[in-house]
Amino acid sequence: MLQNLFPPGIQHALDLAGIFVFATAGALLAVRKNFDVFGIAVLALATALGGGLFRDLVIGAVPPAAFGELSFFVTPLIAAALVFFLHPEVQRINRAISVLDAAGLSLFCVTGTTKAYEYGLGLTASAALGVVTGVGGGVLRDVLANEVPSLLRDREMYAVPAIVGAALVAVFIGLDMLGPVTSGFAVASTFVLRLLAMRFHWKAPLAWNRRSAVAEEP
Amino acid sequence: MLQNLFPPGIQHALDLAGIFVFATAGALLAVRKNFDVFGIAVLALATALGGGLFRDLVIGAVPPAAFGELSFFVTPLIAAALVFFLHPEVQRINRAISVLDAAGLSLFCVTGTTKAYEYGLGLTASAALGVVTGVGGGVLRDVLANEVPSLLRDREMYAVPAIVGAALVAVFIGLDMLGPVTSGFAVASTFVLRLLAMRFHWKAPLAWNRRSAVAEEP
Amino acid sequence: MLQNLFPPGIQHALDLAGIFVFATAGALLAVRKNFDVFGIAVLALATALGGGLFRDLVIGAVPPAAFGELSFFVTPLIAAALVFFLHPEVQRINRAISVLDAAGLSLFCVTGTTKAYEYGLGLTASAALGVVTGVGGGVLRDVLANEVPSLLRDREMYAVPAIVGAALVAVFIGLDMLGPVTSGFAVASTFVLRLLAMRFHWKAPLAWNRRSAVAEEP
Repeated sequence: MLQNLFPPGIQHALDLAGIFVFATAGALLAVRKNFDVFGIAVLALATALGGGLFRDLVIGAVPPAAFGELSFFVTPLIAAALVFFLHPEVQRINRAISVLDAAGLSLFCVTGTTKAYEYGLGLTASAALGVVTGVGGGVLRDVLANEVPSLLRDREMYAVPAIVGAALVAVFIGLDMLGPVTSGFAVASTFVLRLLAMRFHWKAPLAWNRRSAVAEEP
Repeated sequence: MLQNLFPPGIQHALDLAGIFVFATAGALLAVRKNFDVFGIAVLALATALGGGLFRDLVIGAVPPAAFGELSFFVTPLIAAALVFFLHPEVQRINRAISVLDAAGLSLFCVTGTTKAYEYGLGLTASAALGVVTGVGGGVLRDVLANEVPSLLRDREMYAVPAIVGAALVAVFIGLDMLGPVTSGFAVASTFVLRLLAMRFHWKAPLAWNRRSAVAEEP
Repeated sequence: MLQNLFPPGIQHALDLAGIFVFATAGALLAVRKNFDVFGIAVLALATALGGGLFRDLVIGAVPPAAFGELSFFVTPLIAAALVFFLHPEVQRINRAISVLDAAGLSLFCVTGTTKAYEYGLGLTASAALGVVTGVGGGVLRDVLANEVPSLLRDREMYAVPAIVGAALVAVFIGLDMLGPVTSGFAVASTFVLRLLAMRFHWKAPLAWNRRSAVAEEP
């Protein structure tokens, strides 16, 4: 089974780690927006599971993993509880969370691409769905919190590493070379690229000649 | 067939009643937001059918009941037309609408849990999907109206009754005791809990020690 | 196969034209909102493919055409690139874009209704889903951009032509008269109605007696 890039136990632990850190980011936004305990739980669940849920609906993997695998549902709730009680402490390790978030992004876009291909999608569509698996939860989180999705505006080079990672997987599949080593390489490339983008504040470009653009928001 | 908790005719009448009152709440928000007649209809449909639509997509019940059952589609349009012509009168009975809304919530979370279990989901996932069936329409309504979902912020103890009701159904299924009486008990528990929450203004807690929180919005 | 209203090559060219112009409208909104290059691409894709994606998920056409047909995915990216580099020029032909948008709307609501019926939905549900195919992408675009969907508020008579076109198709199917000529008639009716609505500034009505309404927003 292609989808298990790594031995099943390790794969599952990595999935849960990615879910946990995405959920933490969602719960922290909920606290900043002054949401109640239920808002914190919903935003944790949506951020952690939204991308994979969309992927599974598109490829027809019913019921989606988010509803078929109990640990995927419980893990975000644990993250939400931690943030609920300890959020000043959690926020203090914001930097560590960004690094873990980069790891979650890397893992999700690689496994998302692989799963989509297994369900019969073409290589380009698989890569696109892998990117959505990685970034979709964050977009859903921002839409639910009534904010402009940071993915669309923040110029943070969040998508580019995901695109590179998903494209690498598609290339490896096309060359019939996908395995633990090449998958690991795709994950590592995404992760390093994302860390470099954060470290050196790489910016995504705005449209050229924005004569008609609104003023920059503060 | 488990899903018909009550004799089919009664079940259908209850479904339509829940859909009608949810649609009314959606249409009233559209009027408050100054939407046009089409916005009123869309918000009525989304509020009434959004939760069940999401449930049916997740469990693979295609086409979803919202598109398979004509009366589910026409009922929200009738509610929208009533609000369009008579909304000052409709708003005057706001209190009655809140009570009916509690009834719709109770019914939807119980039938949603049952339907999800019938389609093969586990007990926890079924209960989670039952809650989404009950509260999802309201979240979709608020997202479409570009408001922060009241579920996430208003501290109104809207979700807790739904969680209790869905969990009761899951427990009854686990004990192999689900039937008209136990289903009715779950519906009644949700309904009474929601009325008590409204009557005594129970508040959902915010995160502890919100040192980093934004100021309370007015 | 009912779904090919026109010879396959022409049908495909028309689909791509509709996708292209919807994507252009999405990309222009992204530029106005000062989104980065990735926001421009996402909004182009969501506007062009959102309506059809929702339709395909509801009718169980998995994988959806948006992910199964490479040209449907590449076309919005080309539109996004054009807007990225040339948006002042693109905006200058805003009037032409409105006309093309009306053409896309006409085509999408007719093909959407036909496809939904082929997948076994009833006539009313097929027409409803045809309307969603036409207008859904624009709603998703506005939700992602954190704006009130213009469909719900702008009183622009955008939905009415789509409803008329989709209803015409349903009537023709019911009379067993659907073919290239009647389909073309439905497309043309929608198109002309939309152009008339733009030309004469027809307004959708607000609710009667809005004593409780908020003040008109500027």
